[in-house]
Amino acid sequence: MSAAGTQVIPPRRGAGFRLAAGQLLTVIDPEGRQVADLLAYNAADVREVISSGRTLDYAETIRLTTGHLLYSNRSRPMLEIVEDSVGRHDFLLTPCSYDTFHHFYPDLPPHRGCFGNLAEALAPFGVEEDAIPVAFNCFMNVPVDGTTGRLEVLPPTSVAGDRIVLRARMDLVIGLTACSAPASNGGSFKPIHYRIDDPS
Amino acid sequence: MSAAGTQVIPPRRGAGFRLAAGQLLTVIDPEGRQVADLLAYNAADVREVISSGRTLDYAETIRLTTGHLLYSNRSRPMLEIVEDSVGRHDFLLTPCSYDTFHHFYPDLPPHRGCFGNLAEALAPFGVEEDAIPVAFNCFMNVPVDGTTGRLEVLPPTSVAGDRIVLRARMDLVIGLTACSAPASNGGSFKPIHYRIDDPS
Repeated sequence: MSAAGTQVIPPRRGAGFRLAAGQLLTVIDPEGRQVADLLAYNAADVREVISSGRTLDYAETIRLTTGHLLYSNRSRPMLEIVEDSVGRHDFLLTPCSYDTFHHFYPDLPPHRGCFGNLAEALAPFGVEEDAIPVAFNCFMNVPVDGTTGRLEVLPPTSVAGDRIVLRARMDLVIGLTACSAPASNGGSFKPIHYRIDDPS
Repeated sequence: MSAAGTQVIPPRRGAGFRLAAGQLLTVIDPEGRQVADLLAYNAADVREVISSGRTLDYAETIRLTTGHLLYSNRSRPMLEIVEDSVGRHDFLLTPCSYDTFHHFYPDLPPHRGCFGNLAEALAPFGVEEDAIPVAFNCFMNVPVDGTTGRLEVLPPTSVAGDRIVLRARMDLVIGLTACSAPASNGGSFKPIHYRIDDPS
């Protein structure tokens, strides 16, 4: 049962919203090869926040997919991945920002990036921009060379209609973007769709 | 020129101290195969903190060593690695904690871990424990399988006397530990030494 219908995040924009414990968040790549940075905060105390380090430690892999839990900095499960049609997401990198644009794309017009979009979307919930950590970057394709350690940002492997579904394990504030960085999405800017469904 | 001589962090303990811009911090593994979790905060505003995600993004590798910069969440260089006799450090995982001990070592007596030691050491500087992110884990050996994504925590490759030297690029508050987790150090608990030197 849908609680809100399908929502659209326009290209290079972001959204902030509540997700209650038990609700399902479906993040959809409607056109393919687009990234959505996802952040989660405890709605009752936003100092509790999604933690890449805790999650990777417990999962013992950087390749998170169906069945994995996304943990908070307090070692509590925030989200569970219950469906995943892609299997390639990133949990190493922070959201692109004005500074990362300046670093990686010095010839392009500067953009506040996912970081600026998340900061604006989360401000009404009391989240300061310094409290934006490594995001769970849905569909972002960042292979790591096991021998050299080198990482690359490649276009996502997602195709139109691909999705990841996450169930909230506590009452959350979510930040979500349609990514703004050319390298993350194969050079173009596309929307992201999402929907919130109540538990059946 | 030494500003303080060699300091000793006893096994399974931590330390917090100031490091002024330009000063050199040498972290020494005196017995070999021991890990030191390192955190850095802007001394003038501890909301600015070391960021694995920014650092890995700019470095384009998870294998950080001499010449690499460690960035803050505001994309500013905090520390520069100027010497490194090991070349194997981790910047993926959060400090071990009471909860991680419970998870990985359910049969061992619980321990507050590096997380608890860092929280105590950093509290006098106004750092709350929720603001402890992924640490730069000196000498921690966490290979990632490039094909499967799987990560392992192996004993460090460091031998007695190995060291890493970092130069502060701003006035910092540093948190540093002698790691408490059996898997990180090959099953034993050892001290960590450090020294602070003024620029020559």
